[in-house]
Amino acid sequence: MTKKSTRPLILITNDDGISAPGIKNLIEAAAPYGDLVIVGPDSPQSGMGHAITISKPLRIDKVKIYPEHTAYQCSGTPVDCVKIAVDKIMHRKPDILLSGINHGSNSSINVIYSGTMSAAVEGAIEGIPSVGFSLLDYSYEADFTFSREVVQWTIQRILKHGMSKGTLLNINIPKLPIEKVKGYKICRQANAKWKEAFDERVDPNGRKYFWLKGEFDNFDKGKDTDEWALKNGYVSVVPVQFDLTAHQEIKKLQKWTS
Amino acid sequence: MTKKSTRPLILITNDDGISAPGIKNLIEAAAPYGDLVIVGPDSPQSGMGHAITISKPLRIDKVKIYPEHTAYQCSGTPVDCVKIAVDKIMHRKPDILLSGINHGSNSSINVIYSGTMSAAVEGAIEGIPSVGFSLLDYSYEADFTFSREVVQWTIQRILKHGMSKGTLLNINIPKLPIEKVKGYKICRQANAKWKEAFDERVDPNGRKYFWLKGEFDNFDKGKDTDEWALKNGYVSVVPVQFDLTAHQEIKKLQKWTS
Repeated sequence: MTKKSTRPLILITNDDGISAPGIKNLIEAAAPYGDLVIVGPDSPQSGMGHAITISKPLRIDKVKIYPEHTAYQCSGTPVDCVKIAVDKIMHRKPDILLSGINHGSNSSINVIYSGTMSAAVEGAIEGIPSVGFSLLDYSYEADFTFSREVVQWTIQRILKHGMSKGTLLNINIPKLPIEKVKGYKICRQANAKWKEAFDERVDPNGRKYFWLKGEFDNFDKGKDTDEWALKNGYVSVVPVQFDLTAHQEIKKLQKWTS
Repeated sequence: MTKKSTRPLILITNDDGISAPGIKNLIEAAAPYGDLVIVGPDSPQSGMGHAITISKPLRIDKVKIYPEHTAYQCSGTPVDCVKIAVDKIMHRKPDILLSGINHGSNSSINVIYSGTMSAAVEGAIEGIPSVGFSLLDYSYEADFTFSREVVQWTIQRILKHGMSKGTLLNINIPKLPIEKVKGYKICRQANAKWKEAFDERVDPNGRKYFWLKGEFDNFDKGKDTDEWALKNGYVSVVPVQFDLTAHQEIKKLQKWTS
């Protein structure tokens, strides 16, 4: 980071931890397009959503696992990684932020629980064109060959078209052999939810405990959703925003104050 | 919960922990309007955003600190509290979910980092009319007198008008004596962010650590925002949605696939 470079500066993070195969594949796919700075969590942070670390200190340590790049592990959440990268590690605002490649889907309502996506949301809040990538395969042995193509397809388009302020992308990749993938679909977030069914168990001391378990319930029949795209062999590309205002409700709620 | 009741069933949670003054005031304000079930975190969970606990078990324990009501503390995040309340503690879907009263603002971009608001978002995902309340006063000695009025104003309106599916409310209360409050304003989320400035320190072992610190930067001059309302003596009421799709971007992004 001391040499001056005119190449794009790309910040890379994830939520599965800095040593996960997903981020390794993201790094290798992105490397030809810019100078990379990697700041990933030092342990898995799945399901952390937009959590930040307020009540305890954060650590960052330089690591050598990606020797061709500047890489740090951070003791915090994915959002902490982005915040500390921008404030303390990088000498200028990155041109692109890439988060992932997540092991498992972040389509539909999962965008809200996902550490991968929250890191990308935080990047967008910072004004950085940001993307979260997820492959629909939880296995650490997953084949990322096509996912790497998706990463490069995306970077090429960001460099060519830019991205609108206040928005980011949620890109999910179906678990399919390359020849079966039908292409890319720009979609909306499907209206779906997890139906909880906590697993109830008893510990060796006789005390009850619960483990989060659930079933994904997609009640959205739209063919313009990410769920439809993924089920039908497409890569889903959902533009996401961090303005959570339900603008259409503002007029309706006026009657509350009259 | 064993007697049949025709009164509204109200789920109460927060992120400051079940013993915080804010939730006590929320409970006392809501009690005349229904049967309460309280499920709060057993420790402070500020800044947890929409985090859920995936990789370790959850505990729930019945507590007696609010003897007139059914109350449980949960070892997880605010979102965990809502999930386990709905799945394991309540015998039917609650009619209303109230989260808070948070000690400190959740206006503007804070909605994204807030455990209080994420609990309300989770309620809305479950199809429950849900509201998060925050008082702009961090002190545990804060005066909640007017905040209790705001809670009752809100419950009365939910019972009369209902709430639109897929939406919830983010209500912030200025730190003002009652006579100085000008009323309620239905607003949009102001476009603002935190400018990070991590505090860099050295521990007794000579190792560096960082503490999250920042400055709130509101670059939104709109008079229809929550920040404007709060600065001008109003209670801000922002309708929030969990569909994060930036719908206006879908058409623009089509050129990426052609």
